[in-house]
Amino acid sequence: MGVGIGVPGLVDPDRGRVAVAPNLPALNERELGPDLGRVLGRPVRVENDVNAIAVGEWRKGAGRGARALLVVTLGTGVGGGLILAGTLYRGPDGTAGEVGHMPLRPGGPRCRCGARGCLEVYASATAVVAAARAAGVPTEGGAAAVAVAARAGDPRARKVFARAGAAVGVAAAGLVNLLNLDRMVIGGGLAGAWDLMEPHARRELGRRAFSRPLERFRWAPSLLGDDAGVVGAAILAKENMGA
Amino acid sequence: MGVGIGVPGLVDPDRGRVAVAPNLPALNERELGPDLGRVLGRPVRVENDVNAIAVGEWRKGAGRGARALLVVTLGTGVGGGLILAGTLYRGPDGTAGEVGHMPLRPGGPRCRCGARGCLEVYASATAVVAAARAAGVPTEGGAAAVAVAARAGDPRARKVFARAGAAVGVAAAGLVNLLNLDRMVIGGGLAGAWDLMEPHARRELGRRAFSRPLERFRWAPSLLGDDAGVVGAAILAKENMGA
Repeated sequence: MGVGIGVPGLVDPDRGRVAVAPNLPALNERELGPDLGRVLGRPVRVENDVNAIAVGEWRKGAGRGARALLVVTLGTGVGGGLILAGTLYRGPDGTAGEVGHMPLRPGGPRCRCGARGCLEVYASATAVVAAARAAGVPTEGGAAAVAVAARAGDPRARKVFARAGAAVGVAAAGLVNLLNLDRMVIGGGLAGAWDLMEPHARRELGRRAFSRPLERFRWAPSLLGDDAGVVGAAILAKENMGA
Repeated sequence: MGVGIGVPGLVDPDRGRVAVAPNLPALNERELGPDLGRVLGRPVRVENDVNAIAVGEWRKGAGRGARALLVVTLGTGVGGGLILAGTLYRGPDGTAGEVGHMPLRPGGPRCRCGARGCLEVYASATAVVAAARAAGVPTEGGAAAVAVAARAGDPRARKVFARAGAAVGVAAAGLVNLLNLDRMVIGGGLAGAWDLMEPHARRELGRRAFSRPLERFRWAPSLLGDDAGVVGAAILAKENMGA
């Protein structure tokens, strides 16, 4: 039996190599798959963590049955993984899926990536907490605390989720039009607050997406939560997926 | 020998059926492939026209060697076709490729699709002519006349192409990040003016795209021009491509 592992960074799954892991620099340029494989005495499959999450949700979670799926993680940053035409879509360098850095407003606020107006500056948990703080909503406890305030009826907190949801809706509309996406699974720290964001996302989507693909499209919060990556990594270890 | 045909509309290539062709309503819901096949005594392959163009450029034109290719046609409208993971990417309903209706500025000008701020309102030949006219540039002769004025040094005409190029660059950046696109081929009426747009597109791309996929990415004007669709349709008639 093999072992699957999800790494927050750019990996080459065929070689089991981590090219770069910004938050785990000890793994940079490490042959993690072969190295771990020798220690464990088993084959080890290395994959990007959000790609593993996407495979997990697709096969066992909220993405089941989807044919063109984006799994987006709304956490500290915004990450993504794409399942297209029946397989994990990685792209020529393995960098595909970076939905968090699609420009949403070209002149918008600066993103930590250096660009402006990326989806991430509107729809990450970090962005929600920052906007809530700026509006005077208590943010001890992070985005979950902001959700509690919104559910209690605090209009400032509700507005923060409205803005984040609308941003997700605009991005989703572009991807429904371009990729004929039929499912979007919302993961990460904001997944539990998706009900607060969804009406606003739906409104933007309805204004912008073409009717035919829109008819088929739906989104759903993650079913597997923190287990999605583990489930996906195990599936990837069993199968040789990806293009 | 078979026959390939590109139709400006939504088609089901497996059945040879045109679902809807907005500008050729006589074809709506017609079994064009089987019907033509009976008349011609040969198998007929029906495909969306921009998908056929994409296949043509990919196999015989400016897209050769690309692994993740968007062919975008900047004409009356803005259309697109995607080659991903070694095949034409159609999506579950066959509607994929509509890059012209990705939101670029959510609050931007109204698009003929009903939404606001789509790429098409900035980067179509129609948009270029409208912006040139508004700026006082003579537009008899269409976008080509605006290009002549820009090449002669008219700053108003140059500005029109700068804006269109920047819009293409912002859209390209999002797609380089999301899909790890390695090539974008520019077709349609504005392809001949791509040199006027490219520096502005490149600047936006450089500001927004991640360095790793950006290193591999390049764009090029169409090599096959008006022949791309015919070449692609012929290739599609010979092979059974697409996902």
